[in-house]
Amino acid sequence: MSKYDIIVLGSGPGGYVTAIRASQLGFKTAVIEKESLGGVCLNWGCIPTKALLKSAQVFEYLKHAEDYGLTVKEADKDFDAVVKRSRGVADGMSNGVKFLMKKNKIDVIEGFGKLKPGKKVDVDGKEYTADHIIVATGARSRELPSLPQDGKKVIGYREAMTLKEQPKKMIVVGSGAIGVEFAYFYNSMGTDVTIVEFLPNVVPVEDEDVSKQLERSFKKSGIKIMTSSEVTKVDTSGTGVKATVKTKKGEEVLEADIILSAVGIKSNIENIGIEDVGIAVDRDKILVNDYYQTNIPGYYAIGDVTPGQALAHVASAEGILCVEKIAGQNVEALDYGNIPGCTYASPEIASVGLTEKQAREQGLDIKVGKFPFSASGKASASGAKDGFVKVIFDAKYGEWLGCHMIGAGVTDMIAEAVLGRKLETTGHEVLKTVHPHPTMSEAVMEAVADAYGEVIHL
Amino acid sequence: MSKYDIIVLGSGPGGYVTAIRASQLGFKTAVIEKESLGGVCLNWGCIPTKALLKSAQVFEYLKHAEDYGLTVKEADKDFDAVVKRSRGVADGMSNGVKFLMKKNKIDVIEGFGKLKPGKKVDVDGKEYTADHIIVATGARSRELPSLPQDGKKVIGYREAMTLKEQPKKMIVVGSGAIGVEFAYFYNSMGTDVTIVEFLPNVVPVEDEDVSKQLERSFKKSGIKIMTSSEVTKVDTSGTGVKATVKTKKGEEVLEADIILSAVGIKSNIENIGIEDVGIAVDRDKILVNDYYQTNIPGYYAIGDVTPGQALAHVASAEGILCVEKIAGQNVEALDYGNIPGCTYASPEIASVGLTEKQAREQGLDIKVGKFPFSASGKASASGAKDGFVKVIFDAKYGEWLGCHMIGAGVTDMIAEAVLGRKLETTGHEVLKTVHPHPTMSEAVMEAVADAYGEVIHL
Repeated sequence: MSKYDIIVLGSGPGGYVTAIRASQLGFKTAVIEKESLGGVCLNWGCIPTKALLKSAQVFEYLKHAEDYGLTVKEADKDFDAVVKRSRGVADGMSNGVKFLMKKNKIDVIEGFGKLKPGKKVDVDGKEYTADHIIVATGARSRELPSLPQDGKKVIGYREAMTLKEQPKKMIVVGSGAIGVEFAYFYNSMGTDVTIVEFLPNVVPVEDEDVSKQLERSFKKSGIKIMTSSEVTKVDTSGTGVKATVKTKKGEEVLEADIILSAVGIKSNIENIGIEDVGIAVDRDKILVNDYYQTNIPGYYAIGDVTPGQALAHVASAEGILCVEKIAGQNVEALDYGNIPGCTYASPEIASVGLTEKQAREQGLDIKVGKFPFSASGKASASGAKDGFVKVIFDAKYGEWLGCHMIGAGVTDMIAEAVLGRKLETTGHEVLKTVHPHPTMSEAVMEAVADAYGEVIHL
Repeated sequence: MSKYDIIVLGSGPGGYVTAIRASQLGFKTAVIEKESLGGVCLNWGCIPTKALLKSAQVFEYLKHAEDYGLTVKEADKDFDAVVKRSRGVADGMSNGVKFLMKKNKIDVIEGFGKLKPGKKVDVDGKEYTADHIIVATGARSRELPSLPQDGKKVIGYREAMTLKEQPKKMIVVGSGAIGVEFAYFYNSMGTDVTIVEFLPNVVPVEDEDVSKQLERSFKKSGIKIMTSSEVTKVDTSGTGVKATVKTKKGEEVLEADIILSAVGIKSNIENIGIEDVGIAVDRDKILVNDYYQTNIPGYYAIGDVTPGQALAHVASAEGILCVEKIAGQNVEALDYGNIPGCTYASPEIASVGLTEKQAREQGLDIKVGKFPFSASGKASASGAKDGFVKVIFDAKYGEWLGCHMIGAGVTDMIAEAVLGRKLETTGHEVLKTVHPHPTMSEAVMEAVADAYGEVIHL
């Protein structure tokens, strides 16, 4: 029986990062993986979708080359090549994790791990033991009872990124980050896309202004959007698929080749021994304290199986914090109120903190500022005038409550707001931070200036 | 004789921004402009060059479409259309400034302003008076005695962005931001470009690692680079132009259609009445205190005519600070050690604070961290693996001494470092700021982690 200091169950962005940090801290570490190193994020999520989206972005440039003084004859996409490129990027990253495991002397145990009482893990009949066992098994696409996935006509994100043939018509159910990214990608490739969203706004977790801007941009690019709507029935008996959609105005039947179900995720906590060990769960989430300890000593959980935001960067941060605490470091609990969220369609969306609505619902006295990219010199020069930066400050204490961005490149711009909020900046300090000209990032400074009645370029 | 609270001489990014802030603060304000509103930055600098560079970037995508799974037949540039687009963007921005002047009730006085004693300005024979006169006349391309500009075969940045015909061969003298951006643009359009740099490295104000990376990237894209080299003589008598270049190995004669001289700038302080009023200058710079007051009460100077970095964002910040001080606000002097600098070629360059060499020369005990984009998932997905983020911290106090970036989109990423440094962050705080995955901005966090021996993805 092999003995480790730390065993991590799952090698996604939670698990592999945890294992690397554990190894850095001097722990003898193993990671158990049933499929591909890097988990969903590297193989079926964050990374390959960004590769697809990059192809879509470049294709948009090809289609609009004349806007930039360029000429193109017969621009086209090779759908197979686009998918192949994405798979290549994912495989490269997965190999990168393999290299990192080796470099950090982390044992990779291939197989399906199952927790056992007494700090043991069974992997396909072989037993391992560790002082600390960290569950990082992640999540998968959630299935709605009204929308069972057959993997062919009704699919999840996994199938959506490796379709053999490009669908002519596609219905995307759900308009969170995953739904929106695939809707943008397929529309850009030439598929006729309809988004069906149950709530009144697309990207419903974002600030309402962001939702409205995305809806405008998407409609302009030809994506059909049905909000306050629900797929109640699906008929896959014919050549394509028929979806009965309940809208405010009544029922409608949509036909398509494929329905992509993107209605959230479900934690992978089945058959991994949670019950045998007696680990407490609430619905599909493992309950943990600030340092990711479960109710059973020696067992921990991080990432999508725990209640925090189901995001790769959250999982990584949780895992690092978890093992630093185990190592006896003086760690500060993660601030779940300062986690950025990103959607990588075009326009991109990035946000952190409270939306305007949330701030008002909390009864806060706020100052709101907004700066549209249409007033930005860099955006004009780049032909990227859609979108804006919106900021929300506490009127009394100057606290930066929220920052919401939609536009080109904003997923790389949100870090400023996250760091500023972590450092408890005031609006005045952001305003007096000299932002380089001409950049999109000036819009942050100008939005803050707008909140305080000092905006220059509006 | 018209009387104002504040008259601003020059309407570049220093002048027009100063005027807007002055108007916001309740001052009756006028701005004097001899040419186009927005000055060099909007009309002949920052903005139109970014438009040209965007066309170049899109053209690169066209040329490498197959890398993204796309197919293109006969991709070409229409040089006239590229230039025309750039002029359109510049004109749009200049009109935007016109609108802002009107909206803020700022009088625009067209003509050549000349300072007079007694807080007066003469504009082509008409006299205006103000309690506060702010000189913001900017700068122009500097001419070397060995490289006189004839505007045809030996040109400055102004001519370089409106050439009627694309040169087949071009020599760019000087590899600061302006030289490098035009070198990239013309090379991308198909011109055969050679850079001649007097100092041992291209972009000589940047960290040496950045210079080396840019040199590698540029050489890969076909740009020839001669460092430690100097143009000693130019012969424009034939059909093209012959430049005698003194290198370490001896003399060489290069032939080209056009030489672009990009060897810095020269302040516009001639014939504007500086001497009549008795304003003190040192070489071509007007001497000012922390609040931009000259030695003569009531006369101020901001922007390129003063000793600070000759950058648009510095001019704007100085102007705002100058009028806020006049308004009696409690202002903090500008920290010239925390000004970001950007170069918008591909790869982009952005930096703030000390280079590694500067920090070592100051005898500081430092921690250096570096994270290459080749190890970034987002960079792989985007096909943008060239470049890195490099950070320098004070080993003793944790102060963030410098941040140096080269790669795609870094000009929008540097704001995080500028804000962090303003807020006196430590490396640990940056490290524990959750950066969204997958983004290029993660490289900042990882570079900091590298400085402290905690990097995950290396």
